[in-house]
Order: sequence, then C-alpha cells, then structure tokens
Amino acid sequence: MNYTKDDLLKLFHGKRTALFYYIAGFVDGEGSFSVAIIKNPFKEGWLINPCFQVYQHQKHREILELCQEVFKTGSIYRKSGVHPVLNFSINSMRNIKERVLPFFDKYPLVTKRDAYQKFREVVFALDRKEHLTSKGFERLVRIAYSMNQQGKGRRRTLEEVLASQPKPASESSETLRRTSA
Amino acid sequence: MNYTKDDLLKLFHGKRTALFYYIAGFVDGEGSFSVAIIKNPFKEGWLINPCFQVYQHQKHREILELCQEVFKTGSIYRKSGVHPVLNFSINSMRNIKERVLPFFDKYPLVTKRDAYQKFREVVFALDRKEHLTSKGFERLVRIAYSMNQQGKGRRRTLEEVLASQPKPASESSETLRRTSA
Repeated sequence: MNYTKDDLLKLFHGKRTALFYYIAGFVDGEGSFSVAIIKNPFKEGWLINPCFQVYQHQKHREILELCQEVFKTGSIYRKSGVHPVLNFSINSMRNIKERVLPFFDKYPLVTKRDAYQKFREVVFALDRKEHLTSKGFERLVRIAYSMNQQGKGRRRTLEEVLASQPKPASESSETLRRTSA
Repeated sequence: MNYTKDDLLKLFHGKRTALFYYIAGFVDGEGSFSVAIIKNPFKEGWLINPCFQVYQHQKHREILELCQEVFKTGSIYRKSGVHPVLNFSINSMRNIKERVLPFFDKYPLVTKRDAYQKFREVVFALDRKEHLTSKGFERLVRIAYSMNQQGKGRRRTLEEVLASQPKPASESSETLRRTSA
C-alpha cells in the first residue's frame, strides 16, 4: 500500500515536533551531508558545493515528499545508475543556510553528527568567503575530503585538487566563486 | 569522534519522547522486521521466527547501544560477511510482544509500515497458536514470504516450504512448535 504525504502527516497526529524528530532519525539512516569539489566549467579553478541529500527506493517516494514538506524546499529526482533510487536534494546555499542548518541544529543527528558538523563549518566558511584565499580554500577542501569515508569514491585525489588551484595575483581577488549561492 | 550512549541521551535533553520519535525514524532507515522460516533442527517441520533488527557500521556501535537502552533488551553482534557491520537484534517472542510492538504501535514508521504490520500480524497469530494447523501455518508462511521484497534472498521457495510441511494426524496436535517463544 502506498501512503500519501497527508496520510503520513496524520500518523504524527499533527505533532510537527514528533515528525521533526522522526525525520532527524530517518536522515541519520538514509541521508547524506556532502561537499562536492567540482571543476569550474567556466574558468580555471574549483567550486565547493555543499549538498544535503536523502535517498530512497522509488516505491517510497512519499517519504521524500514528506522531507519536501518539512524543509519547504528541495527537489526529488531519479538517481543515475541501475537501481530505481530517488534522491531528495537541497543544494542552494540559501536554502541550506535557512532551512537545513536551523533544522539539524535543533533536531539532533547521531551517526551523521560529525559529517553534519563539518558540513556546517564549510557552509559558514563559504558564507564568510574564506574559500577566496588559497589558505581558506585548502582548509575547506581538506574538511570536505575528511568527510564520508575520507574522500573514498571521489574522482580526484586531494593532492590533484590542491595542485591545480589557480594562484591568485592578490589573495583577495575572487579566483574561486560558487555558482549556486 | 565517538559518542557514548550517555552523550547521545543528552542530545535529546532528557526528552525520551523526542528520542523515541528519532529512533522510529532511524529504524525506518536502517531497521528490518522479518519472519524467518527455518528447518526445525529436532524434528520434521519448520519454525516461524520473527526477528527485529537494526544494522550499523561498527564505527557507530553507540546508536545500537542507544537502541538497547530504548528497548531495554536486545543483543549486538557482528554480522557474518566481509563488511564490518553490527546487528542489533530482538528475537524472543516475549520481548517482541512486550517491547517491540508497543513501541512501534505508538511511534510511527513510514517506509517500513507495511512490513511492520505483517510482522505484527504474524506475532499475534503465533501467540494464538494459529501456526499449529496446516491452514494457519500456510497463511503465516505466505505472509512471511510477502514481506521484504517478496521472499527475495530466501534459501527456499515458498512451494518447497509448503510441500514439506508434515501432515498432522489431528489438526490440533502440535506438529510445529516455535523454540524461542
């Protein structure tokens, strides 16, 4: 049987706090906080992109819709690959700052607590434009690579990313800029 | 960083209800409700064994200890196989009836809701000794095989189990008995 998002909200008897603690637990199982380091498609350098995701088999799309309801944002799309898995994703800096961080600062994570703290640190540092200096950029990339099994599964090694960092003429020039902020 | 069970309890500010909703969410991601059908090692026939489990990588043993704290029972052991995964498991009928069912009747599951309802039905039917008649046994095996991806991954087909069921002289004789009740 499939439940609609409204059926699910009823399970929590209209108690949104109960639903929020449930969602924190579910994210601890099926969610991910990651920081992608991707090549800037328009110029030399890299983009540092934080992303919050929740995965689920497509037969339980309703739980991802419940996440949309809770965070009041986020897209659901089919993940590439053979398995019929859906992905709920929030990757805009604004939504991460306004919806994701305040939520998990209040409703606690357990197994993903460390990953979340690093994710949070990267988001705030990007907001302070720390990534625009070589030193700041390196610090954030190192944090990103220390998350989620120490960079396992990343296309490039930490050394490759740091080696091909453009050397800014002035440390304050914006050689690295995020596009999705 | 590793958190102790006490650190984790503090995250919920002593609000046990908050912790319980969190655990429901976590189980929806990483838990399983299953009904094993295994050969009776002592005589002809089968045993119907419900089991509630939660899996986690060994680096987060603390979340399974938190489950032990919540359910006030359950064992944690290393799962066989190459991956360093731990398993928190409750399989005694008594503990399932007294600890697991009252918990999930109160704190709702979403993605595992259907599996849980079937699990619950099997537990109550075993308690009523419905499995001691051929008809009851068949009904429970069919429910078990309809759970968790329709019996995928089971060693024996549904037909094999039903075909080798001993025919009781009297339908009321205890030809099939659970050992772990």
